[in-house]
Amino acid sequence: MAESNLGYTLKQLAEMVGGELEGPEDFLITRPVPAHSDDPSGVTFAESEKYLGKALAGSVGAVIVPAETGSSLKPLIRVASPRLAFGMVLHAFAKPMPARGIDPTAVVSDSANVDPTASIGAYAVVEDGATIGAGTNILAHAYIGPDCHVGANCMIFSHVTLVQDVQVGEGCRIHAGAVLGADGFGFYWDGSRQQKVPQVGGVIVGKNVEIGAHTCIDRATCGDTIIQDGVKLDNLVQIGHNTVVGSHTVMAAQVGTSGSVTIGEKNVFGGQAALSDHVTTGDNMIFGGRSGVIGDMDQPGEYFGLPPVPLSTAMRVMALQARLPELYKRMREMERQIEELKNGS
Amino acid sequence: MAESNLGYTLKQLAEMVGGELEGPEDFLITRPVPAHSDDPSGVTFAESEKYLGKALAGSVGAVIVPAETGSSLKPLIRVASPRLAFGMVLHAFAKPMPARGIDPTAVVSDSANVDPTASIGAYAVVEDGATIGAGTNILAHAYIGPDCHVGANCMIFSHVTLVQDVQVGEGCRIHAGAVLGADGFGFYWDGSRQQKVPQVGGVIVGKNVEIGAHTCIDRATCGDTIIQDGVKLDNLVQIGHNTVVGSHTVMAAQVGTSGSVTIGEKNVFGGQAALSDHVTTGDNMIFGGRSGVIGDMDQPGEYFGLPPVPLSTAMRVMALQARLPELYKRMREMERQIEELKNGS
Amino acid sequence: MAESNLGYTLKQLAEMVGGELEGPEDFLITRPVPAHSDDPSGVTFAESEKYLGKALAGSVGAVIVPAETGSSLKPLIRVASPRLAFGMVLHAFAKPMPARGIDPTAVVSDSANVDPTASIGAYAVVEDGATIGAGTNILAHAYIGPDCHVGANCMIFSHVTLVQDVQVGEGCRIHAGAVLGADGFGFYWDGSRQQKVPQVGGVIVGKNVEIGAHTCIDRATCGDTIIQDGVKLDNLVQIGHNTVVGSHTVMAAQVGTSGSVTIGEKNVFGGQAALSDHVTTGDNMIFGGRSGVIGDMDQPGEYFGLPPVPLSTAMRVMALQARLPELYKRMREMERQIEELKNGS
Repeated sequence: MAESNLGYTLKQLAEMVGGELEGPEDFLITRPVPAHSDDPSGVTFAESEKYLGKALAGSVGAVIVPAETGSSLKPLIRVASPRLAFGMVLHAFAKPMPARGIDPTAVVSDSANVDPTASIGAYAVVEDGATIGAGTNILAHAYIGPDCHVGANCMIFSHVTLVQDVQVGEGCRIHAGAVLGADGFGFYWDGSRQQKVPQVGGVIVGKNVEIGAHTCIDRATCGDTIIQDGVKLDNLVQIGHNTVVGSHTVMAAQVGTSGSVTIGEKNVFGGQAALSDHVTTGDNMIFGGRSGVIGDMDQPGEYFGLPPVPLSTAMRVMALQARLPELYKRMREMERQIEELKNGS
Repeated sequence: MAESNLGYTLKQLAEMVGGELEGPEDFLITRPVPAHSDDPSGVTFAESEKYLGKALAGSVGAVIVPAETGSSLKPLIRVASPRLAFGMVLHAFAKPMPARGIDPTAVVSDSANVDPTASIGAYAVVEDGATIGAGTNILAHAYIGPDCHVGANCMIFSHVTLVQDVQVGEGCRIHAGAVLGADGFGFYWDGSRQQKVPQVGGVIVGKNVEIGAHTCIDRATCGDTIIQDGVKLDNLVQIGHNTVVGSHTVMAAQVGTSGSVTIGEKNVFGGQAALSDHVTTGDNMIFGGRSGVIGDMDQPGEYFGLPPVPLSTAMRVMALQARLPELYKRMREMERQIEELKNGS
Repeated sequence: MAESNLGYTLKQLAEMVGGELEGPEDFLITRPVPAHSDDPSGVTFAESEKYLGKALAGSVGAVIVPAETGSSLKPLIRVASPRLAFGMVLHAFAKPMPARGIDPTAVVSDSANVDPTASIGAYAVVEDGATIGAGTNILAHAYIGPDCHVGANCMIFSHVTLVQDVQVGEGCRIHAGAVLGADGFGFYWDGSRQQKVPQVGGVIVGKNVEIGAHTCIDRATCGDTIIQDGVKLDNLVQIGHNTVVGSHTVMAAQVGTSGSVTIGEKNVFGGQAALSDHVTTGDNMIFGGRSGVIGDMDQPGEYFGLPPVPLSTAMRVMALQARLPELYKRMREMERQIEELKNGS
């Protein structure tokens, strides 16, 4: 996309976001930048006085600001919502990944069904019985295993592995190295060794799901591990076998679920949070980073800790833990005083 | 395996598990399913009254039940051990991954030694001096580095990397993306920068080991990092350099060991547990999820926490921590009362 | 490197480390080994009496010892610093990974610029606009995405992915499966679903950086995620978008940073430590394993915990937590005694 490499003039950007430009129309912006940037050809945005002050004080090229903002020596684009306008700018600068049809080096099974509008990158492998939907882009080195189905308009990055019997709905974005459909972790001790429980189930991923780099979603022992529509998983997340992740739930990096976990809709999990096997959560629950859900919970709200308690309680407990040395000291002093009182009376 | 796609009749399944069928012999079962499933062509199992009631109430196709179970409108297969019988059914429905000999696109070094009964998938690379045992199946994109040795009857999934000097015993199963033999993490501060300690050791993996997706087992600084026979590692596990994992030990997802850790036989680690460098554990120790072993421990038993304490103690401590705000309140009240007693007497 | 396979004689090793040999000059050493090894053709080192005693008591082939060490039946090499000398031995035994120029199966874009002294392994892919510096070795299956730049003398292992707009400085070592440049994790709830914030920034990695297997460094929303010179990241680390990691900082395995974290120079993070979004740390800070930085911190020192407190305090708090059951018991006893005192007076 040549434009995204060359950039946009301020006039083009103002038109793009439906804003009013104060500054030179031909000034070239080469990329969007964070609020603290000093890139003279960058554009940023400011919604509060604080961020506006920072941006105006630096040497950033231009700032997208609220409509009521006064004049400045720096080029401004005035809009109703700077945040939404900046999102449009980000979108405009997004560069597509390569999509050039089926690369001659891709190995596609005769029994696979690839939509003619899909792209398959170099050295990607599509095994027997797999299907690839319209407009989907599969990058180099991806492995689409036997009987895996990828819906329309998906983006599958390099080195992704769908092992076997994995279904991915339309509009999903699966980042580099993610593994869907590896065996669930099921063994039992037979008295002399761990015997494997065969893992023959599948993985079903709904629509508009995003799956981070190196995230692992295990196939079910039987039945399916299910990721419902709109779920967003960050990098290095582990989803155990037979887990169900409710729609629009969000998990930050390094979260882990054991097997047969059932998570409600619109949950949020901070980084490194975890859930024990067979636990269930309700809808609209927020768990802070590193929370450990070890039993069923269903009241909507914000939680933190191991086990998670309401956030305000958790913060008090955390503060009091740091004061344990003082508490022990005060307790010993009380014991001494009580002894004195007993002896003295 | 055509049968696994089409399924099995109830008669075939009953014969397979040595059970007694009550129900239509020709009824086709297409897949095993969990107890709560409503799949009318699925088969599940029930060992307790509770699960049996659930299964009979739903629309699942058939249920494998204990021999003494009474009649039902739903097809039943009566066996001595429903769990073992269901394991046999799972096994029967397992579909093999592709194994078609040496793919023409595989790059195998002239100095590598691949058993004629082994399979090497598309775009896999086998470097100088590597050996691949009989019946082993290496899937697409795997990388078997210089002087790596994979024993007989192993399953190496897509994108696995054995870097260099890695030995894998017979009957191992290494899931997608696992990395064996990356450098151990060894540096020292020389006053101006971190200097690398060269990592020239190897990795030795015993027999019948299972290694999860994206699990990393680092090569030793010198000598070997050792995973003994029968060990089972889940996904995203980190095994530091020069660690020894005792035979039949099990680690759930996201567990991490630092360097030079020595783990006994038949240990079990829950998810996200961790071990500090140079610690040693005895045999038959169970550590709950997220436990943090920071010193040597050797008494068999069940532990939890950071540091791990006996499970029952850990549960009491965890419960009492949540009551810290109440404890502080009671303490302040006692201090007030003691003051009153002192003044009042 | 034939020598590293055959080994070195004791005479060669003594000359290599500038030491004085006591023992047979022609004795062949085939590999360096840890202090506890019993490998009769291995060489180890000992700096303290304790390790020396262990080494001499075992059957290891030879020991590198301090200059003042007395005679022994076992071959010795006397040097000023056994540790440094052993580092030289490790270095000598390091075997290079394959580097054979541009493999005929590598797919290199016409618009990519690969230095003629670089090597590109089998099935590696180098996309449009990418550049590869002099002496850099890119192993099989690596993916160097569009507009990614890898400096001179880097080592890029198998299955590494640089997604797009990633710059890597000279002398870096990126281990198998690492992913640089996957999307940052940015979404906002629009009332009915999580909307994606496009991630269009890049990743900049300085010089002499080491990045562990399967470590993920996300691209910035806009601007750049920055890893400064000399940083060392272990395996399975997560670096969130727009994070800055200060020079010479070290992170052990499974550490995670949220977005927009700013880490000072020469920080050290133990395994599984984590940082909340937007927090900042000063220079020369050490955080124990699993510490959780949830607010800005800037005083140099050693910390541990969630939130991190000075290490000595953290160890006391940890010890007192284990005594909470006793504390509650003593508190109940005090309450009883106070009641008696009140009633008895």
